Amino acid sequence: MKIAVLGTGSVGRALAAGLAGAGHEVCMGTRDVRSTIARDDADQYGVSLSQWMADNPVVELATYADCAAAGDLVINATNGQASLLALEAAGSENLAGKVLIDTANPLDFSQGFPPTLFVRDTDSLGERIQRAFPHARVVKSLNTLTAGLMLNPSSLGAPSAVFVSGDDPAAKKEVVDLLAGFGWEQILDLGGISTARGVEMLMTMWLQLMGMFGDASFNWAIVR
Amino acid sequence: MKIAVLGTGSVGRALAAGLAGAGHEVCMGTRDVRSTIARDDADQYGVSLSQWMADNPVVELATYADCAAAGDLVINATNGQASLLALEAAGSENLAGKVLIDTANPLDFSQGFPPTLFVRDTDSLGERIQRAFPHARVVKSLNTLTAGLMLNPSSLGAPSAVFVSGDDPAAKKEVVDLLAGFGWEQILDLGGISTARGVEMLMTMWLQLMGMFGDASFNWAIVR
Repeated sequence: MKIAVLGTGSVGRALAAGLAGAGHEVCMGTRDVRSTIARDDADQYGVSLSQWMADNPVVELATYADCAAAGDLVINATNGQASLLALEAAGSENLAGKVLIDTANPLDFSQGFPPTLFVRDTDSLGERIQRAFPHARVVKSLNTLTAGLMLNPSSLGAPSAVFVSGDDPAAKKEVVDLLAGFGWEQILDLGGISTARGVEMLMTMWLQLMGMFGDASFNWAIVR
Repeated sequence: MKIAVLGTGSVGRALAAGLAGAGHEVCMGTRDVRSTIARDDADQYGVSLSQWMADNPVVELATYADCAAAGDLVINATNGQASLLALEAAGSENLAGKVLIDTANPLDFSQGFPPTLFVRDTDSLGERIQRAFPHARVVKSLNTLTAGLMLNPSSLGAPSAVFVSGDDPAAKKEVVDLLAGFGWEQILDLGGISTARGVEMLMTMWLQLMGMFGDASFNWAIVR
């Protein structure tokens, strides 16, 4: 499948590398290719984007719009405060009819760390995206765990959970199948896109847990 | 130990019965003993309070103030919107110096179901209680799971997690020891009372999960 991963940070890179490794044709979208390469930020692992591109030659870097246009499936891996602008740049015509996996969290870092949430239990970023792009088939998923685990669930010591929220059952089915292919066993369908509220609000506690453990290699599980 | 459980609903009853069963001397506090008995609500299991009191004769029903005065440890098991008033009725002098376990959630049902949260990631009910009763040693705990599991963690199919938040390390130690005595294995100390924000915000997703499963017999676990 052709997959467009919008965003070049830790989440975008982890997803692009994992999906390409699984045989998908992957582009990574950014606002401006030339300035992104010129800025050349190191990620949390100290790897610059140009180094990362050299290490992952099968992943193409393109504008949000070119990348989204090429993708059969689109993944929003931009930071939450930039997501709506990034998706506007991608173009509603390039999202229409496609599954759009939203992995972002509505984190507001303007007051420092820990961030607060700029939208909470009466709305969600997932819903805002679905409202802004009514013809995209938005599925909120993968926002509840660190980038490195998203496509590597078996790297933890026991099975854990990932969630999907969305109004389009067939779109959720496509995402569930994609995730199952990477080894996810507990994939919980919470319901419509409004259930993005719950998974986005996990972020406050996720940040506390990261502080307590001193690293991000953990995940939620639901025990019955 | 003498334990004051404030609140006569499902949470208060489950905690009072479980603690009494473990050999503690337990009173259950209410606003007005006579009117509580007269009202005689059935709980979620269809059991009236007078029936419950007959089934649990070792638990004494008393006013918030009398019960809190008698307790070495106090548990807030009232509903979140009533908690501050209930604790005022209990009396700050009867809470001072004591461990106060806050199990309540800041749920606002005024707009129907699902409820929203009346305080969220910039404050929490746990912090409000600690601010209102600065001489109580508040420990937020047990608000993340259904009443029937709070003192029965082994009734689920696998180990799961419970959390403590509070500013007083010795108070948290007391709560951790109490919980461990009921079989809790994953007891995670999230930090100061401000981390009550995270555990209270789990409630939104907890309600979604309850809707999805059709029952409340589940719990969070953290996998590393």
